[in-house]
Amino acid sequence: MPIALRWGDMDAYGHVNNVEILRLIEEARVRVIWRADDPAENLPTAVLHPGVGDVLTVVARLETEYLAQVPYSRAPVEVEVWFGAIGGASFDMCYEVYSPAGVEPRVLFARSVVTMVTVTAVDGRPTRLPESCRTAWADYTEGPLMFSRRSRA
Amino acid sequence: MPIALRWGDMDAYGHVNNVEILRLIEEARVRVIWRADDPAENLPTAVLHPGVGDVLTVVARLETEYLAQVPYSRAPVEVEVWFGAIGGASFDMCYEVYSPAGVEPRVLFARSVVTMVTVTAVDGRPTRLPESCRTAWADYTEGPLMFSRRSRA
Amino acid sequence: MPIALRWGDMDAYGHVNNVEILRLIEEARVRVIWRADDPAENLPTAVLHPGVGDVLTVVARLETEYLAQVPYSRAPVEVEVWFGAIGGASFDMCYEVYSPAGVEPRVLFARSVVTMVTVTAVDGRPTRLPESCRTAWADYTEGPLMFSRRSRA
Amino acid sequence: MPIALRWGDMDAYGHVNNVEILRLIEEARVRVIWRADDPAENLPTAVLHPGVGDVLTVVARLETEYLAQVPYSRAPVEVEVWFGAIGGASFDMCYEVYSPAGVEPRVLFARSVVTMVTVTAVDGRPTRLPESCRTAWADYTEGPLMFSRRSRA
Repeated sequence: MPIALRWGDMDAYGHVNNVEILRLIEEARVRVIWRADDPAENLPTAVLHPGVGDVLTVVARLETEYLAQVPYSRAPVEVEVWFGAIGGASFDMCYEVYSPAGVEPRVLFARSVVTMVTVTAVDGRPTRLPESCRTAWADYTEGPLMFSRRSRA
Repeated sequence: MPIALRWGDMDAYGHVNNVEILRLIEEARVRVIWRADDPAENLPTAVLHPGVGDVLTVVARLETEYLAQVPYSRAPVEVEVWFGAIGGASFDMCYEVYSPAGVEPRVLFARSVVTMVTVTAVDGRPTRLPESCRTAWADYTEGPLMFSRRSRA
Repeated sequence: MPIALRWGDMDAYGHVNNVEILRLIEEARVRVIWRADDPAENLPTAVLHPGVGDVLTVVARLETEYLAQVPYSRAPVEVEVWFGAIGGASFDMCYEVYSPAGVEPRVLFARSVVTMVTVTAVDGRPTRLPESCRTAWADYTEGPLMFSRRSRA
Repeated sequence: MPIALRWGDMDAYGHVNNVEILRLIEEARVRVIWRADDPAENLPTAVLHPGVGDVLTVVARLETEYLAQVPYSRAPVEVEVWFGAIGGASFDMCYEVYSPAGVEPRVLFARSVVTMVTVTAVDGRPTRLPESCRTAWADYTEGPLMFSRRSRA
C-alpha cells in the first residue's frame, strides 16, 4: 500500500524521522482495517466501523527495527501489511516499509509489529474482536515478522 | 494537486487540525517549486534545485483563512496553487484547499497566501530569485487571492 | 509564557519549522484561555471550560510574520500573548514569540494574530462569547499587533 | 525528567497519540545525552556534542509498551531514563513515562527500550562509542527494562 511522505517528515538529520515512520505505519493500519465512506475504495480487510460501532482499537505495544535511512521523495513509500497472531481481544499487525515503486534496487527501510487491543468505545474495556474481522483477516494472516535481533530486555 | 491526509492529522475535535492544514500547504509548495530526482514527475514549475544550488526559500509571512472543517478521508484533498506577486528576492504563493475529487458538492476548506524569500544557503542572506524561476512561474501567475476579511492589525 | 521546544520541531533546514511555530502558538492559546484541573495553575484568563460547557473555539484565520530563524534549545521560548479586538462571537489573540529567558540579546522570532470564533459544541454554529470571557480578558486587551508589511491580497 | 505535553499531541480519540509519546521519549533522549550551550543546564550524562564532533546517534530499534491512556495536561509528564546494555558501537536507553508530579496516584503510562547506534557524521558508518560517554553513563546504567509480554515474533 502506498503511503505518501511529507517534506516536513524530515528532521535535522535530513532524513524521514524515525517517529514519523511510525506515523506512516499508523496511516497504513487505519486504511487496512477501518471502513470509510469517502471516495477511496475499501480494502477487503477494511471491516471495522469508525464511530458507528462500539469497538475501538488501542495500541498495546509496538516493536520496530530501522534498517536504512529514509530519504524524502514525492513518490510514496510502499508499506506491506499483514496480520500476525489474532487473539481473543487482540491482534498483531506486521509491516514492512519499502522504497517507492520504481526505485531500483528495492530497499527495506523498516519492519514493525504492532499489537492492537479491541476495547469498547463506551468505557475502554477490552472486548472480543468481532467475528467479521476474524473472517476478513484470515486470508491476510501470515507467520510472524522476524526481527534481526532483540534488545536484552 | 492532490495531497494525502493522515488520520493522525486530526486533533481532539475530530477534524484535521488547522496547523496540519499548513503542513499540507507546505507539501504542495515543495512539490510545485523544487526539482527532484525521484520516480515522480517534475511539474513545469519545479525548477529550484535542492542541495545543489545555493538558493533556499524561507517563509517570511503567511496568512490563512479557514472556511470549513476538514474531515479525514483516505482520498487526498485537492490543493490549487498559483503565484501571486513576484518580487526581486521574494514571491507570493496562493493556495486553495478543496475537498477530494469525487466529493459533491465541492467544498473550499481554506485559502492561504505565503510570502517566500530566497536566501543563499551559505549565509541566509536574501538573494535575487533566479531568472529560471521567473520564467517558469510566469504562466502560473494570477491576481492576488482575495480574503473574506482581515483582522484589525 | 514559556513554551517548550522539541528537537523534533526542527526540519531539514536545521531550524524550528515555521509550521511547528504555529503549534507552539496553539499551545500558548490553550493554556491562556482554557481552564483545567491538572496540577498546573490556571491563569486569570483561563475561564473557558473544556468538555463541560457547550462552547468550543475554532480558528477562523491566522496571520503570521517570521522575523528570525528559531534554533532548538532546551530552554523554552517565551510567548507573549494578549487579546486584540473582541467581537460578539469572535476574538483576536496576538502573539510574539521571543528567545528564551536568559538569552542576550533578546530576539523576536515571530508575530502572529489569530482570529477565533466561538461555536456551540453541539452543532458548530457561531454563538456569543460568554460574558465571563469578556470580563476576564478585558485587562489583557491591547491595541492590535502591527505587522511589518502585508502581501498584495 | 519533565517533558511538556502539547494539546496538539492528542488525536481524534482525545488522548495523547501513541506516536507522539515516542516524540516525548525522543526529546528526553536528546536532553539526556547531548551537550548544548543554551541557558538550560547540562545533565551529567549530556556529553555528546552536536555538530562539532563527528559522531551522530541513529535509532536502530525501539520497543514500547503502552499501559494507560495519556490525558493532556499542562503539567509535564515525568520521564525516567536510564541506560541498559552498552555495546561497542551501540547502547540501549530505557524509559518509563509517568503522570506529572503532583498527580495521585502515580500512573505508569508507557515503557520503552530504544537501541541507538553511533555512526560517523561524515558517512553514516558505525563507529565506536566515545569513552567519555561510557564513563559518564556508567553511573546511570541499570538492569534491563522488563516488559509485560512480547509478541510472537
